[in-house]
Amino acid sequence: MDQRPLILVTNDDGITANGIRTLAEEMKAFGLVLVVAPDKPQSAMGHAITIHHYLRLQKLDLMEGVEAYACSGTPVDCVKLAIYEVIKGKPALLVSGINHGSNISINVLYSGTMSAAVEGALEGIPSIGFSLMDHDIDADFSLVRPIVRSVTANVLKNGIPKGACLNVNVPKASGEALKGVRICRQAWGNWEDDFETRRDPMGKDYYWMRGRFKDLDHGEDTDVWAVHNGYASVVPVQFDMTAHHAIAELNTWDHAH
Amino acid sequence: MDQRPLILVTNDDGITANGIRTLAEEMKAFGLVLVVAPDKPQSAMGHAITIHHYLRLQKLDLMEGVEAYACSGTPVDCVKLAIYEVIKGKPALLVSGINHGSNISINVLYSGTMSAAVEGALEGIPSIGFSLMDHDIDADFSLVRPIVRSVTANVLKNGIPKGACLNVNVPKASGEALKGVRICRQAWGNWEDDFETRRDPMGKDYYWMRGRFKDLDHGEDTDVWAVHNGYASVVPVQFDMTAHHAIAELNTWDHAH
Repeated sequence: MDQRPLILVTNDDGITANGIRTLAEEMKAFGLVLVVAPDKPQSAMGHAITIHHYLRLQKLDLMEGVEAYACSGTPVDCVKLAIYEVIKGKPALLVSGINHGSNISINVLYSGTMSAAVEGALEGIPSIGFSLMDHDIDADFSLVRPIVRSVTANVLKNGIPKGACLNVNVPKASGEALKGVRICRQAWGNWEDDFETRRDPMGKDYYWMRGRFKDLDHGEDTDVWAVHNGYASVVPVQFDMTAHHAIAELNTWDHAH
Repeated sequence: MDQRPLILVTNDDGITANGIRTLAEEMKAFGLVLVVAPDKPQSAMGHAITIHHYLRLQKLDLMEGVEAYACSGTPVDCVKLAIYEVIKGKPALLVSGINHGSNISINVLYSGTMSAAVEGALEGIPSIGFSLMDHDIDADFSLVRPIVRSVTANVLKNGIPKGACLNVNVPKASGEALKGVRICRQAWGNWEDDFETRRDPMGKDYYWMRGRFKDLDHGEDTDVWAVHNGYASVVPVQFDMTAHHAIAELNTWDHAH
Protein backbone atom coordinates (compact mmCIF):
# COMPACT_ATOMS: atom_id res chain seq x y z
CA MET A 1 0.00 0.00 0.00
CA ASP A 2 1.13 3.49 -0.82
CA GLN A 3 2.40 5.14 2.36
CA ARG A 4 2.61 8.69 0.98
CA PRO A 5 0.17 11.23 2.43
CA LEU A 6 -3.04 11.44 0.41
CA ILE A 7 -3.65 14.88 -1.06
CA LEU A 8 -7.10 15.87 -2.34
CA VAL A 9 -7.09 18.45 -5.12
CA THR A 10 -10.20 20.35 -6.21
CA ASN A 11 -11.20 23.72 -7.66
CA ASP A 12 -14.15 25.72 -8.94
CA ASP A 13 -13.02 26.42 -12.50
CA GLY A 14 -13.60 22.80 -13.44
CA ILE A 15 -11.36 19.80 -13.96
CA THR A 16 -10.16 20.96 -17.39
CA ALA A 17 -8.78 24.29 -16.11
CA ASN A 18 -5.06 24.96 -16.34
CA GLY A 19 -4.89 25.98 -12.69
CA ILE A 20 -5.85 22.58 -11.28
CA ARG A 21 -3.36 20.85 -13.55
CA THR A 22 -0.55 23.00 -12.20
CA LEU A 23 -1.66 22.37 -8.63
CA ALA A 24 -1.94 18.59 -9.11
CA GLU A 25 1.54 18.51 -10.68
CA GLU A 26 3.03 20.38 -7.72
CA MET A 27 1.30 18.08 -5.23
CA LYS A 28 2.95 14.97 -6.72
CA ALA A 29 6.14 16.03 -4.92
CA PHE A 30 4.30 15.96 -1.58
CA GLY A 31 2.21 12.82 -1.77
CA LEU A 32 -0.33 10.65 -3.52
CA VAL A 33 -2.68 12.88 -5.50
CA LEU A 34 -6.44 12.44 -5.87
CA VAL A 35 -8.37 14.97 -7.97
CA VAL A 36 -12.14 15.36 -7.55
CA ALA A 37 -13.27 18.50 -9.31
CA PRO A 38 -16.36 19.91 -11.02
CA ASP A 39 -17.04 18.73 -14.58
CA LYS A 40 -17.83 22.35 -15.58
CA PRO A 41 -17.03 25.85 -14.30
CA GLN A 42 -18.52 26.46 -10.85
CA SER A 43 -17.17 29.90 -10.08
CA ALA A 44 -19.07 31.98 -7.54
CA MET A 45 -20.96 28.96 -6.24
CA GLY A 46 -19.95 29.80 -2.68
CA HIS A 47 -20.75 27.08 -0.16
CA ALA A 48 -23.63 25.68 -2.23
CA ILE A 49 -24.32 21.96 -2.04
CA THR A 50 -26.59 19.82 -4.19
CA ILE A 51 -29.56 18.43 -2.31
CA HIS A 52 -32.35 18.63 -4.90
CA HIS A 53 -30.51 16.64 -7.56
CA TYR A 54 -28.38 13.53 -7.63
CA LEU A 55 -24.65 13.76 -8.31
CA ARG A 56 -22.50 12.02 -10.87
CA LEU A 57 -18.86 11.04 -10.57
CA GLN A 58 -16.87 10.19 -13.69
CA LYS A 59 -13.36 8.70 -13.55
CA LEU A 60 -11.00 10.15 -16.15
CA ASP A 61 -7.36 10.42 -17.20
CA LEU A 62 -6.02 13.79 -16.14
CA MET A 63 -2.30 13.10 -15.85
CA GLU A 64 0.06 10.25 -15.15
CA GLY A 65 0.07 8.90 -11.62
CA VAL A 66 -3.02 10.83 -10.56
CA GLU A 67 -6.47 9.36 -9.85
CA ALA A 68 -9.06 11.86 -11.09
CA TYR A 69 -12.84 12.23 -11.06
CA ALA A 70 -15.11 14.82 -12.62
CA CYS A 71 -18.15 15.57 -10.46
CA SER A 72 -21.44 17.04 -11.64
CA GLY A 73 -21.84 19.20 -8.53
CA THR A 74 -20.34 22.17 -6.76
CA PRO A 75 -16.85 22.43 -5.27
CA VAL A 76 -18.23 21.60 -1.80
CA ASP A 77 -20.04 18.59 -3.28
CA CYS A 78 -16.66 17.47 -4.67
CA VAL A 79 -15.09 17.59 -1.21
CA LYS A 80 -17.98 15.67 0.35
CA LEU A 81 -18.01 13.01 -2.40
CA ALA A 82 -14.22 12.65 -2.20
CA ILE A 83 -14.27 12.10 1.57
CA TYR A 84 -17.42 10.04 1.97
CA GLU A 85 -17.54 8.10 -1.29
CA VAL A 86 -14.14 7.96 -3.04
CA ILE A 87 -11.70 7.86 -0.11
CA LYS A 88 -14.14 6.82 2.60
CA GLY A 89 -11.78 8.62 4.94
CA LYS A 90 -9.88 11.85 5.18
CA PRO A 91 -6.93 13.04 3.13
CA ALA A 92 -3.84 14.42 4.86
CA LEU A 93 -4.22 17.67 2.95
CA LEU A 94 -6.77 19.43 0.75
CA VAL A 95 -5.71 22.01 -1.83
CA SER A 96 -8.13 23.96 -4.00
CA GLY A 97 -7.35 25.96 -7.12
CA ILE A 98 -5.28 27.36 -8.57
CA ASN A 99 -8.17 29.73 -9.14
CA HIS A 100 -8.27 31.89 -12.25
CA GLY A 101 -8.83 35.27 -10.60
CA SER A 102 -8.45 36.65 -7.11
CA ASN A 103 -10.28 35.61 -3.96
CA ILE A 104 -9.20 38.50 -1.77
CA SER A 105 -11.42 40.36 0.67
CA ILE A 106 -15.11 39.51 0.61
CA ASN A 107 -14.67 37.26 -2.43
CA VAL A 108 -13.93 34.50 0.05
CA LEU A 109 -17.71 34.27 0.56
CA TYR A 110 -18.62 33.90 -3.13
CA SER A 111 -15.69 31.72 -4.11
CA GLY A 112 -16.24 28.04 -4.76
CA THR A 113 -12.47 27.54 -4.53
CA MET A 114 -12.39 28.89 -1.00
CA SER A 115 -15.64 27.19 0.04
CA ALA A 116 -14.04 23.85 -0.84
CA ALA A 117 -11.14 24.74 1.46
CA VAL A 118 -13.55 25.83 4.21
CA GLU A 119 -15.39 22.51 3.86
CA GLY A 120 -12.05 20.75 4.31
CA ALA A 121 -11.39 22.76 7.47
CA LEU A 122 -14.84 21.81 8.77
CA GLU A 123 -13.78 18.20 8.41
CA GLY A 124 -10.57 18.85 10.30
CA ILE A 125 -8.40 18.54 7.18
CA PRO A 126 -5.53 21.03 6.69
CA SER A 127 -6.84 22.94 3.68
CA ILE A 128 -5.49 25.65 1.39
CA GLY A 129 -7.07 27.63 -1.44
CA PHE A 130 -4.74 29.13 -4.06
CA SER A 131 -5.66 31.90 -6.48
CA LEU A 132 -3.81 33.80 -9.18
CA MET A 133 -5.04 37.30 -9.95
CA ASP A 134 -5.26 36.63 -13.66
CA HIS A 135 -8.44 35.68 -15.49
CA ASP A 136 -6.64 35.14 -18.79
CA ILE A 137 -7.13 31.66 -20.23
CA ASP A 138 -3.36 31.62 -20.82
CA ALA A 139 -2.52 32.89 -17.35
CA ASP A 140 1.03 32.00 -16.32
CA PHE A 141 0.66 29.71 -13.33
CA SER A 142 4.41 29.09 -13.08
CA LEU A 143 4.49 32.27 -10.99
CA VAL A 144 2.42 30.54 -8.33
CA ARG A 145 4.49 27.37 -8.12
CA PRO A 146 7.08 28.58 -5.58
CA ILE A 147 4.28 29.93 -3.36
CA VAL A 148 2.39 26.64 -3.60
CA ARG A 149 5.55 24.75 -2.60
CA SER A 150 6.43 27.05 0.28
CA VAL A 151 2.92 27.24 1.80
CA THR A 152 2.28 23.53 1.34
CA ALA A 153 5.61 22.61 2.98
CA ASN A 154 4.77 24.87 5.92
CA VAL A 155 1.28 23.39 6.32
CA LEU A 156 2.56 19.81 6.19
CA LYS A 157 5.24 20.70 8.76
CA ASN A 158 3.29 22.99 11.12
CA GLY A 159 -0.39 22.22 10.50
CA ILE A 160 -2.99 25.00 10.47
CA PRO A 161 -4.51 26.41 13.66
CA LYS A 162 -7.76 24.58 14.54
CA GLY A 163 -10.91 25.78 12.81
CA ALA A 164 -9.07 27.58 10.03
CA CYS A 165 -7.92 27.09 6.45
CA LEU A 166 -5.70 29.30 4.31
CA ASN A 167 -6.67 31.69 1.52
CA VAL A 168 -3.58 32.31 -0.63
CA ASN A 169 -3.69 34.95 -3.38
CA VAL A 170 -0.84 35.61 -5.76
CA PRO A 171 -0.67 38.83 -7.78
CA LYS A 172 0.05 38.78 -11.49
CA ALA A 173 3.56 40.18 -11.42
CA SER A 174 4.84 39.62 -14.93
CA GLY A 175 8.49 40.39 -15.38
CA GLU A 176 8.87 41.47 -11.78
CA ALA A 177 9.70 39.22 -8.85
CA LEU A 178 7.21 38.61 -6.07
CA LYS A 179 8.34 40.36 -2.91
CA GLY A 180 7.33 37.42 -0.74
CA VAL A 181 4.46 36.20 1.41
CA ARG A 182 2.38 38.29 3.83
CA ILE A 183 0.05 36.93 6.52
CA CYS A 184 -3.03 39.18 6.28
CA ARG A 185 -6.56 39.75 7.40
CA GLN A 186 -9.49 39.92 4.97
CA ALA A 187 -9.93 43.51 3.74
CA TRP A 188 -13.25 45.28 4.33
CA GLY A 189 -14.85 45.77 0.95
CA ASN A 190 -17.81 44.83 -1.20
CA TRP A 191 -19.14 44.68 -4.73
CA GLU A 192 -21.08 47.50 -6.25
CA ASP A 193 -23.19 45.65 -8.73
CA ASP A 194 -24.98 46.90 -11.69
CA PHE A 195 -27.14 44.84 -13.98
CA GLU A 196 -27.04 45.10 -17.72
CA THR A 197 -30.61 44.84 -18.95
CA ARG A 198 -31.22 43.25 -22.33
CA ARG A 199 -34.43 42.46 -24.17
CA ASP A 200 -35.03 39.01 -25.64
CA PRO A 201 -36.69 38.44 -29.05
CA MET A 202 -40.01 37.97 -27.21
CA GLY A 203 -39.72 41.46 -25.77
CA LYS A 204 -38.98 40.39 -22.21
CA ASP A 205 -36.11 41.80 -20.16
CA TYR A 206 -33.25 39.77 -18.77
CA TYR A 207 -30.30 40.81 -16.64
CA TRP A 208 -26.57 40.17 -16.57
CA MET A 209 -24.78 40.79 -13.31
CA ARG A 210 -21.73 43.02 -13.48
CA GLY A 211 -19.85 44.39 -10.55
CA ARG A 212 -17.00 46.55 -9.41
CA PHE A 213 -15.09 45.63 -6.27
CA LYS A 214 -14.80 48.48 -3.81
CA ASP A 215 -12.00 48.35 -1.24
CA LEU A 216 -13.22 50.19 1.85
CA ASP A 217 -10.21 49.34 4.01
CA HIS A 218 -7.18 51.60 4.44
CA GLY A 219 -5.19 49.07 6.48
CA GLU A 220 -1.80 47.81 5.35
CA ASP A 221 -2.36 44.43 6.99
CA THR A 222 -5.03 43.34 4.48
CA ASP A 223 -4.98 40.92 1.58
CA VAL A 224 -5.95 43.72 -0.82
CA TRP A 225 -2.97 45.81 0.30
CA ALA A 226 -0.59 42.85 0.01
CA VAL A 227 -1.45 41.80 -3.54
CA HIS A 228 -1.42 45.39 -4.76
CA ASN A 229 2.03 45.85 -3.28
CA GLY A 230 3.68 42.82 -4.84
CA TYR A 231 3.16 40.23 -2.08
CA ALA A 232 1.29 36.95 -2.05
CA SER A 233 -1.35 37.21 0.69
CA VAL A 234 -2.14 34.41 3.14
CA VAL A 235 -5.34 34.89 5.15
CA PRO A 236 -6.37 32.33 7.77
CA VAL A 237 -10.12 31.76 7.21
CA GLN A 238 -12.48 30.40 9.82
CA PHE A 239 -15.97 28.92 9.64
CA ASP A 240 -17.19 30.30 12.96
CA MET A 241 -19.20 33.22 11.60
CA THR A 242 -20.31 34.42 15.04
CA ALA A 243 -19.79 38.15 15.52
CA HIS A 244 -18.59 37.54 19.07
CA HIS A 245 -18.04 41.25 19.66
CA ALA A 246 -21.77 41.87 19.14
CA ILE A 247 -23.08 39.42 21.74
CA ALA A 248 -22.77 41.73 24.76
CA GLU A 249 -24.67 44.51 22.99
CA LEU A 250 -27.46 42.19 21.84
CA ASN A 251 -27.85 40.97 25.43
CA THR A 252 -29.00 44.47 26.41
CA TRP A 253 -32.08 44.13 24.18
CA ASP A 254 -35.51 43.84 25.71
CA HIS A 255 -37.51 40.86 24.46
CA ALA A 256 -40.91 41.25 26.02
CA HIS A 257 -42.06 37.78 25.16
CA MET B 1 -44.70 59.31 -1.66
CA ASP B 2 -44.88 56.56 0.88
CA GLN B 3 -42.81 57.57 3.90
CA ARG B 4 -42.81 54.19 5.63
CA PRO B 5 -39.46 52.37 5.86
CA LEU B 6 -38.90 50.01 2.92
CA ILE B 7 -38.50 46.39 3.97
CA LEU B 8 -37.01 43.85 1.57
CA VAL B 9 -38.22 40.28 2.09
CA THR B 10 -36.51 37.26 0.54
CA ASN B 11 -35.90 33.57 1.29
CA ASP B 12 -34.40 30.40 -0.15
CA ASP B 13 -37.46 28.15 -0.21
CA GLY B 14 -38.94 30.14 -3.08
CA ILE B 15 -41.62 32.77 -3.41
CA THR B 16 -44.46 30.27 -3.08
CA ALA B 17 -43.34 28.96 0.32
CA ASN B 18 -45.57 29.48 3.34
CA GLY B 19 -42.73 30.91 5.38
CA ILE B 20 -42.16 33.97 3.19
CA ARG B 21 -45.89 34.71 3.15
CA THR B 22 -45.95 34.77 6.96
CA LEU B 23 -42.87 36.98 7.06
CA ALA B 24 -44.23 39.44 4.48
CA GLU B 25 -47.53 39.67 6.39
CA GLU B 26 -45.71 40.48 9.63
CA MET B 27 -43.56 43.11 7.93
CA LYS B 28 -46.62 45.07 6.78
CA ALA B 29 -46.94 46.35 10.36
CA PHE B 30 -43.40 47.77 10.19
CA GLY B 31 -43.25 49.36 6.75
CA LEU B 32 -43.66 49.17 3.01
CA VAL B 33 -42.94 45.60 1.89
CA LEU B 34 -41.05 44.54 -1.23
CA VAL B 35 -40.59 40.83 -1.91
CA VAL B 36 -37.86 39.60 -4.26
CA ALA B 37 -37.47 35.86 -3.88
CA PRO B 38 -36.38 32.85 -5.92
CA ASP B 39 -38.91 31.42 -8.38
CA LYS B 40 -38.02 27.90 -7.20
CA PRO B 41 -36.48 26.26 -4.10
CA GLN B 42 -32.87 27.39 -3.58
CA SER B 43 -32.06 25.69 -0.31
CA ALA B 44 -28.40 25.02 0.44
CA MET B 45 -27.25 27.46 -2.24
CA GLY B 46 -25.02 29.24 0.27
CA HIS B 47 -23.55 32.49 -0.99
CA ALA B 48 -23.73 31.42 -4.65
CA ILE B 49 -24.33 34.09 -7.27
CA THR B 50 -25.18 33.72 -10.95
CA ILE B 51 -22.43 34.94 -13.23
CA HIS B 52 -22.54 32.41 -16.09
CA HIS B 53 -26.23 32.92 -16.88
CA TYR B 54 -28.56 35.87 -17.17
CA LEU B 55 -31.27 36.46 -14.59
CA ARG B 56 -35.01 36.93 -14.96
CA LEU B 57 -37.30 38.97 -12.76
CA GLN B 58 -41.07 38.41 -12.95
CA LYS B 59 -43.57 40.69 -11.20
CA LEU B 60 -46.44 38.82 -9.59
CA ASP B 61 -49.35 39.13 -7.15
CA LEU B 62 -48.34 37.66 -3.84
CA MET B 63 -50.62 39.49 -1.43
CA GLU B 64 -52.44 42.78 -1.14
CA GLY B 65 -50.32 45.86 -0.64
CA VAL B 66 -47.04 44.05 -1.37
CA GLU B 67 -44.89 44.50 -4.49
CA ALA B 68 -43.43 41.11 -5.35
CA TYR B 69 -40.97 39.67 -7.88
CA ALA B 70 -39.90 36.11 -8.58
CA CYS B 71 -36.23 35.86 -9.56
CA SER B 72 -34.63 33.05 -11.52
CA GLY B 73 -31.45 33.13 -9.43
CA THR B 74 -30.14 32.41 -5.96
CA PRO B 75 -31.12 34.18 -2.73
CA VAL B 76 -28.01 36.40 -2.96
CA ASP B 77 -28.92 37.22 -6.59
CA CYS B 78 -32.35 38.29 -5.28
CA VAL B 79 -30.76 40.73 -2.83
CA LYS B 80 -28.47 42.17 -5.49
CA LEU B 81 -31.27 42.54 -8.05
CA ALA B 82 -33.56 44.10 -5.44
CA ILE B 83 -30.96 46.70 -4.43
CA TYR B 84 -29.39 47.50 -7.78
CA GLU B 85 -32.29 47.00 -10.19
CA VAL B 86 -35.68 47.14 -8.43
CA ILE B 87 -35.09 49.69 -5.65
CA LYS B 88 -31.96 51.32 -7.05
CA GLY B 89 -31.13 52.06 -3.47
CA LYS B 90 -31.11 50.37 -0.10
CA PRO B 91 -34.04 49.21 2.01
CA ALA B 92 -34.23 50.15 5.68
CA LEU B 93 -34.36 46.49 6.62
CA LEU B 94 -33.84 43.09 5.01
CA VAL B 95 -35.56 39.98 6.35
CA SER B 96 -35.04 36.49 4.97
CA GLY B 97 -37.16 33.40 5.58
CA ILE B 98 -39.05 32.16 7.39
CA ASN B 99 -36.96 29.16 6.47
CA HIS B 100 -38.46 25.69 6.54
CA GLY B 101 -35.86 23.96 8.71
CA SER B 102 -33.13 25.09 11.05
CA ASN B 103 -30.05 27.13 10.25
CA ILE B 104 -28.23 26.60 13.51
CA SER B 105 -24.49 25.96 13.86
CA ILE B 106 -22.55 25.40 10.65
CA ASN B 107 -25.73 25.45 8.56
CA VAL B 108 -25.25 29.20 8.38
CA LEU B 109 -22.63 28.48 5.68
CA TYR B 110 -24.87 26.31 3.48
CA SER B 111 -28.06 28.28 3.98
CA GLY B 112 -29.37 30.48 1.18
CA THR B 113 -31.66 32.17 3.72
CA MET B 114 -28.71 33.24 5.84
CA SER B 115 -26.50 34.11 2.86
CA ALA B 116 -29.16 36.59 1.74
CA ALA B 117 -28.99 38.19 5.20
CA VAL B 118 -25.18 38.23 5.07
CA GLU B 119 -25.35 39.92 1.66
CA GLY B 120 -27.62 42.55 3.23
CA ALA B 121 -25.10 43.09 6.02
CA LEU B 122 -22.33 43.50 3.43
CA GLU B 123 -24.39 46.32 1.95
CA GLY B 124 -24.77 47.94 5.35
CA ILE B 125 -28.47 47.02 5.62
CA PRO B 126 -29.80 45.77 8.99
CA SER B 127 -30.59 42.17 8.08
CA ILE B 128 -32.23 39.22 9.82
CA GLY B 129 -32.69 35.60 8.81
CA PHE B 130 -35.55 33.66 10.44
CA SER B 131 -35.87 29.88 10.51
CA LEU B 132 -38.36 27.46 12.00
CA MET B 133 -37.08 24.01 12.89
CA ASP B 134 -39.85 22.27 11.00
CA HIS B 135 -39.53 20.90 7.47
CA ASP B 136 -43.20 19.93 7.26
CA ILE B 137 -45.03 21.57 4.35
CA ASP B 138 -47.79 22.42 6.85
CA ALA B 139 -45.37 23.76 9.46
CA ASP B 140 -47.09 26.12 11.90
CA PHE B 141 -45.39 29.48 11.37
CA SER B 142 -47.71 31.24 13.83
CA LEU B 143 -45.24 30.14 16.51
CA VAL B 144 -42.58 32.33 14.92
CA ARG B 145 -44.70 35.48 14.63
CA PRO B 146 -44.05 36.87 18.16
CA ILE B 147 -40.31 36.29 17.71
CA VAL B 148 -40.36 38.01 14.32
CA ARG B 149 -42.15 41.00 15.87
CA SER B 150 -39.87 41.23 18.89
CA VAL B 151 -36.57 40.88 17.01
CA THR B 152 -37.68 43.20 14.19
CA ALA B 153 -38.81 45.88 16.65
CA ASN B 154 -35.46 45.65 18.42
CA VAL B 155 -33.50 45.90 15.18
CA LEU B 156 -35.49 48.91 13.96
CA LYS B 157 -35.00 50.59 17.36
CA ASN B 158 -31.38 49.65 18.13
CA GLY B 159 -29.82 48.72 14.80
CA ILE B 160 -27.39 45.81 14.51
CA PRO B 161 -23.68 46.14 15.39
CA LYS B 162 -21.63 47.03 12.28
CA GLY B 163 -20.58 44.14 10.06
CA ALA B 164 -23.16 41.73 11.44
CA CYS B 165 -26.62 40.37 10.71
CA LEU B 166 -28.83 38.14 12.85
CA ASN B 167 -29.51 34.42 12.54
CA VAL B 168 -32.77 33.65 14.38
CA ASN B 169 -33.87 30.03 14.85
CA VAL B 170 -37.14 29.03 16.46
CA PRO B 171 -37.69 25.49 17.73
CA LYS B 172 -40.85 23.59 16.91
CA ALA B 173 -42.55 23.66 20.30
CA SER B 174 -46.06 22.47 19.60
CA GLY B 175 -48.38 22.75 22.55
CA GLU B 176 -45.62 24.14 24.73
CA ALA B 177 -44.70 27.78 25.08
CA LEU B 178 -41.36 29.11 23.94
CA LYS B 179 -39.20 30.00 26.93
CA GLY B 180 -37.93 33.17 25.26
CA VAL B 181 -34.99 34.44 23.23
CA ARG B 182 -31.32 33.66 23.81
CA ILE B 183 -28.38 35.52 22.30
CA CYS B 184 -25.95 32.75 21.30
CA ARG B 185 -22.79 31.87 19.47
CA GLN B 186 -22.69 29.41 16.56
CA ALA B 187 -22.21 25.87 17.89
CA TRP B 188 -19.20 23.86 16.75
CA GLY B 189 -20.51 21.01 14.64
CA ASN B 190 -20.55 19.53 11.17
CA TRP B 191 -22.35 17.16 8.85
CA GLU B 192 -21.38 13.54 8.55
CA ASP B 193 -22.47 12.83 5.05
CA ASP B 194 -23.14 9.60 3.40
CA PHE B 195 -24.13 9.12 -0.19
CA GLU B 196 -26.83 6.77 -1.31
CA THR B 197 -25.62 5.13 -4.49
CA ARG B 198 -28.22 4.16 -7.10
CA ARG B 199 -27.83 2.67 -10.54
CA ASP B 200 -29.62 4.20 -13.52
CA PRO B 201 -31.28 2.12 -16.28
CA MET B 202 -28.06 2.51 -18.32
CA GLY B 203 -26.08 0.82 -15.54
CA LYS B 204 -24.29 3.96 -14.36
CA ASP B 205 -24.11 4.99 -10.71
CA TYR B 206 -25.47 8.22 -9.32
CA TYR B 207 -25.39 9.60 -5.79
CA TRP B 208 -27.83 11.30 -3.43
CA MET B 209 -26.35 13.30 -0.59
CA ARG B 210 -27.65 12.48 2.86
CA GLY B 211 -26.22 13.77 6.06
CA ARG B 212 -26.49 13.69 9.82
CA PHE B 213 -25.65 16.82 11.78
CA LYS B 214 -23.14 16.20 14.57
CA ASP B 215 -23.05 18.68 17.43
CA LEU B 216 -19.47 18.73 18.75
CA ASP B 217 -20.01 21.57 21.23
CA HIS B 218 -20.85 21.08 24.91
CA GLY B 219 -21.38 24.80 25.59
CA GLU B 220 -24.66 26.14 26.91
CA ASP B 221 -24.20 29.44 25.10
CA THR B 222 -24.71 27.95 21.63
CA ASP B 223 -27.63 28.08 19.21
CA VAL B 224 -27.88 24.28 19.28
CA TRP B 225 -28.25 24.29 23.06
CA ALA B 226 -30.85 27.08 22.96
CA VAL B 227 -33.21 25.52 20.43
CA HIS B 228 -33.00 22.12 22.12
CA ASN B 229 -33.90 23.74 25.42
CA GLY B 230 -36.98 25.60 24.29
CA TYR B 231 -35.48 28.98 23.38
CA ALA B 232 -35.33 30.88 20.13
CA SER B 233 -31.65 31.46 19.34
CA VAL B 234 -30.26 34.74 18.01
CA VAL B 235 -26.69 34.56 16.68
CA PRO B 236 -24.96 37.69 15.37
CA VAL B 237 -23.25 36.62 12.13
CA GLN B 238 -20.33 38.44 10.55
CA PHE B 239 -18.79 38.34 7.09
CA ASP B 240 -15.21 38.87 8.20
CA MET B 241 -14.05 35.28 7.97
CA THR B 242 -10.49 36.04 9.09
CA ALA B 243 -9.29 33.69 11.83
CA HIS B 244 -7.65 36.61 13.62
CA HIS B 245 -6.39 34.34 16.42
CA ALA B 246 -4.30 32.41 13.89
CA ILE B 247 -2.37 35.34 12.45
CA ALA B 248 0.34 35.49 15.10
CA GLU B 249 1.09 31.77 14.72
CA LEU B 250 1.25 31.98 10.93
CA ASN B 251 3.69 34.86 11.23
CA THR B 252 6.22 32.46 12.79
CA TRP B 253 6.38 30.45 9.56
CA ASP B 254 9.51 30.48 7.45
CA HIS B 255 8.90 31.36 3.81
CA ALA B 256 12.23 30.89 2.15
CA HIS B 257 11.28 32.64 -1.03
